[in-house]
Amino acid sequence: LTVADLTETELIERVRRQLATPPDWVLVGIGDDAAVVEPERNRVEVLTCDASLEGVHFDRAFTPPEAIGHRALAATLSDLAAMGAVPRLALLSLALPADLPCDDFDRIVTGLAVLAARHRLHVVGGNLVRTPGPLTLDITALGTVKRRQALLRAGARPGDELYVTGSVGAAAAGLQMLREAPDASGPPDGGPHMRYLYPEPRLRTGLLLGRTRAATACVDLSDGLADAVWRIAEASGVGAVIDGDSLPIDAAVREWFETRGTDPVAAAMTGGDDYELLFAARPRLRGRLKAAARHGGVPVARIGVCTDDRAVLVRRAGHPDAPLARGYTHFR
Amino acid sequence: LTVADLTETELIERVRRQLATPPDWVLVGIGDDAAVVEPERNRVEVLTCDASLEGVHFDRAFTPPEAIGHRALAATLSDLAAMGAVPRLALLSLALPADLPCDDFDRIVTGLAVLAARHRLHVVGGNLVRTPGPLTLDITALGTVKRRQALLRAGARPGDELYVTGSVGAAAAGLQMLREAPDASGPPDGGPHMRYLYPEPRLRTGLLLGRTRAATACVDLSDGLADAVWRIAEASGVGAVIDGDSLPIDAAVREWFETRGTDPVAAAMTGGDDYELLFAARPRLRGRLKAAARHGGVPVARIGVCTDDRAVLVRRAGHPDAPLARGYTHFR
Repeated sequence: LTVADLTETELIERVRRQLATPPDWVLVGIGDDAAVVEPERNRVEVLTCDASLEGVHFDRAFTPPEAIGHRALAATLSDLAAMGAVPRLALLSLALPADLPCDDFDRIVTGLAVLAARHRLHVVGGNLVRTPGPLTLDITALGTVKRRQALLRAGARPGDELYVTGSVGAAAAGLQMLREAPDASGPPDGGPHMRYLYPEPRLRTGLLLGRTRAATACVDLSDGLADAVWRIAEASGVGAVIDGDSLPIDAAVREWFETRGTDPVAAAMTGGDDYELLFAARPRLRGRLKAAARHGGVPVARIGVCTDDRAVLVRRAGHPDAPLARGYTHFR
Repeated sequence: LTVADLTETELIERVRRQLATPPDWVLVGIGDDAAVVEPERNRVEVLTCDASLEGVHFDRAFTPPEAIGHRALAATLSDLAAMGAVPRLALLSLALPADLPCDDFDRIVTGLAVLAARHRLHVVGGNLVRTPGPLTLDITALGTVKRRQALLRAGARPGDELYVTGSVGAAAAGLQMLREAPDASGPPDGGPHMRYLYPEPRLRTGLLLGRTRAATACVDLSDGLADAVWRIAEASGVGAVIDGDSLPIDAAVREWFETRGTDPVAAAMTGGDDYELLFAARPRLRGRLKAAARHGGVPVARIGVCTDDRAVLVRRAGHPDAPLARGYTHFR
């Protein structure tokens, strides 16, 4: 049974079955020309969308359907995390190849619905279309934040310290593991591939960084750490020196890269898909920052400092300072 | 020069150049992890998204780039029109094949930006990705409406009359014309193909129908008139009898179908892409309705009535009543 055997109405019903009951502020949910919702009082709205395409962002050969749904939503939620916003609602636009099994469709929705429920995000509408091309999930999310607590890219000043949440490079290592062992056995349970398949958007840390005003600038790491550093530097009009030896790279990930002759630091700098947060903070707010990090449930590591020239460098013991290469780009 | 020769930043800049200056309520626009906007007071929010795929919704062989952009946005705005909402903001998610010429990219954005500006819709963000598949425009729009003025699908009662805006069948005829003459000369200026290429979302009529509370139910005709009648009937729990002889079909369109041996009424019933509105209204509100229609700038035609059994029929002089076939569906 594939999605082409069902009507659009039947497919929509299969999505709806897996979603939590909508709250009172959803006046009209799935099933009309559009959704109608009551805005939240005393908050500004944060809006973002992110697309996840088969063959570009994931490979069905080694990405379980639940992970396809989870990752697509995580990417969108990570943008909200980087703004310090609380997720509120989402619209799902799905382009489905005719040969997609219904069971896979349901499992994609499961991955997505479970993550949505965990963050109290309500899917209020969307769009379904059959595509001759790759399976595509395009997710728009709306979150809310108090006006003065939104975290922007611009705002870092020379002297601010740069921090990253969690650890970096794990998703890149995990993706390579999956590519090398795409068979049913796959990599061992709990390995770095789980970081690629089921990334956790750092919503709680983002929220606390905004609420405590501990951060002066913030972005997420969707296109890698190096790219994220460049984005804060360019938006804020500062330079940066990253201490390559201080990057939080899990021991297993470091070892895995080393046994393949890859420099773990370079791999962690340019690898995408980590969905951690990079943020800048004033040194004198370090206490506030530590409290925010503690309650955010994920460690933060100091990895560098903002400077007043515009160079963006990486510094490592035994190496001369080197300009930081940019990360992955979809175009040139 | 194709889009693959430019960086993502350069492409975003090319989009931004064509957009109107954002208003004050856009606190953070294009260029951060997400947009930040101030919600409108005393309004509820209407959200919808719609995808437009090459090979499914349009064919680059006979759809000029400006029309690709225009049609994609018109489809999304039509959903807002059907809810009685005023457009406010949009997010553009574009998946671009590497061989898309930059000039075509710019012209797609032009088509979209011109329609957006006409309706004071502000593009506040989006996403760009390179795709191995079809060119895809996925547009999410947010509009606003006073809570009691939102037009839903459910609400029609037996005895309510059914109306359609403008005329039907023109886009279907226009699409066939383009398919038959995809060469540079194309069909004559101002013909029905313009209705396929540059549909006008009926925003003003939708707004007035909601504001005057003249309509009891409303949907748009994205998947054809027959499908729209079914949607109102099912959501409202009523049946319907459509007077096939009363459909507003332009003389040129009628003639064009007839010379090809096609029944114009059947073609107008099932053809998609018209983006007109179908709505129900109480007979005693006919005066109010006519005023709304007059100020909406597009004629409305009475085409049927809601009934208290659940059958959905089409009635024509010289024919027995026939059940109304459903329209186009992307799946089964």
